[in-house]
Amino acid sequence: MPLDPTAAIEITAFNWVPDFAKGNVRDLRVRWALEEAGLAYRARLFDAKDARPEGYLREQPFGQVPAYECGDVRMFESVAIALEIAEGSEALMPRDPMGRARARTWAIAAINSVEIAINALIDVDVFHAGEDWAKARRPQAEQEVRRRLTLLSGWLGDKDHLEDRFTVGDLLMASVLRALRHTDLVAEHENLKAYLARCEARPAFARALADHMAAFERPREAA
Amino acid sequence: MPLDPTAAIEITAFNWVPDFAKGNVRDLRVRWALEEAGLAYRARLFDAKDARPEGYLREQPFGQVPAYECGDVRMFESVAIALEIAEGSEALMPRDPMGRARARTWAIAAINSVEIAINALIDVDVFHAGEDWAKARRPQAEQEVRRRLTLLSGWLGDKDHLEDRFTVGDLLMASVLRALRHTDLVAEHENLKAYLARCEARPAFARALADHMAAFERPREAA
Repeated sequence: MPLDPTAAIEITAFNWVPDFAKGNVRDLRVRWALEEAGLAYRARLFDAKDARPEGYLREQPFGQVPAYECGDVRMFESVAIALEIAEGSEALMPRDPMGRARARTWAIAAINSVEIAINALIDVDVFHAGEDWAKARRPQAEQEVRRRLTLLSGWLGDKDHLEDRFTVGDLLMASVLRALRHTDLVAEHENLKAYLARCEARPAFARALADHMAAFERPREAA
Repeated sequence: MPLDPTAAIEITAFNWVPDFAKGNVRDLRVRWALEEAGLAYRARLFDAKDARPEGYLREQPFGQVPAYECGDVRMFESVAIALEIAEGSEALMPRDPMGRARARTWAIAAINSVEIAINALIDVDVFHAGEDWAKARRPQAEQEVRRRLTLLSGWLGDKDHLEDRFTVGDLLMASVLRALRHTDLVAEHENLKAYLARCEARPAFARALADHMAAFERPREAA
């Protein structure tokens, strides 16, 4: 769906971030979920360098993006928002209880069993690059990412998706794996590399990424 | 509810962990959610030092606890399981869509906006205690926990819970804050200290903690 300034759904996102963060801010996950679900939305944009607008902590208590609003429902946390969108969309969540439980499981596993290790490596490689402690820490952090990816690859095997079809769990797992683009760690596993490429080849992802990137070219007041 | 070896719900947990982990393994969150919901369950116990049983990676692809089974539904990830239990229990999740969205939001915020910083400090204080890089890293890691707790305290204000009643979001936030017991960081905020005490004073938590701790006194085959 194209961005629509009259849509009922609004998300917050940034119109400026450092170059390394472009393509990787968490509004992208929510844009992707909305595109898969076929829901129009508008985006309210901030500059990541600036203080957040007055009152924003009441929308997002940690000052981050995205926040989400649809009628009376106000949420934050990209994973919670993606799950909320998925609950209402068969494109992201099967109808049967077992399938729903598995999709929810993988949504959490993406952040809590995989991203948790990736974040430690990103801390070292990006946020504290060049600090002495980060150099000493890096081998352990990389090894832990490798260990988790090996387990994930073992689960995936020759399947196309984490379960028998694409779900919000795959959307979030692919989003998490993308943060390793500066390394060859995903490519060490042929099946993970192909899985990530398969998820990124979805038209909904391409649209979401294009709108995410376009925001960095737009003046603040635009959607 | 007492543990019941004939219950339909089974979780996995440990019957041995290092002392620092006792009272803090993630099966505790699920036990607590089950107690709040009034659901009987049984526990299948492993020794954390041993290799996992043959085939366990098909239940829990990362080899961790807890895994969860109820009829055809098989899940892993404590937060996904707690949310699944909450979806069926008004004790953990309000009935109205807005209330449900807020409970889910805080469930994710607990792990993704608060625990993420706490984990970095636990890495330094527990898993890599004494390593040179950990000593150099600690002030930053502590500062980031302090920053997030200040924001959380600001949100909480003088409320009893994160929203207008106890939900699975509070259950998970309290679970996450408990991991800071070796520090005074929570106590730096009177309202957070009282909030954590309020959550821990719930009878369901006391029962869950007692059963979690009792598992460490039991032979492996017992429930």
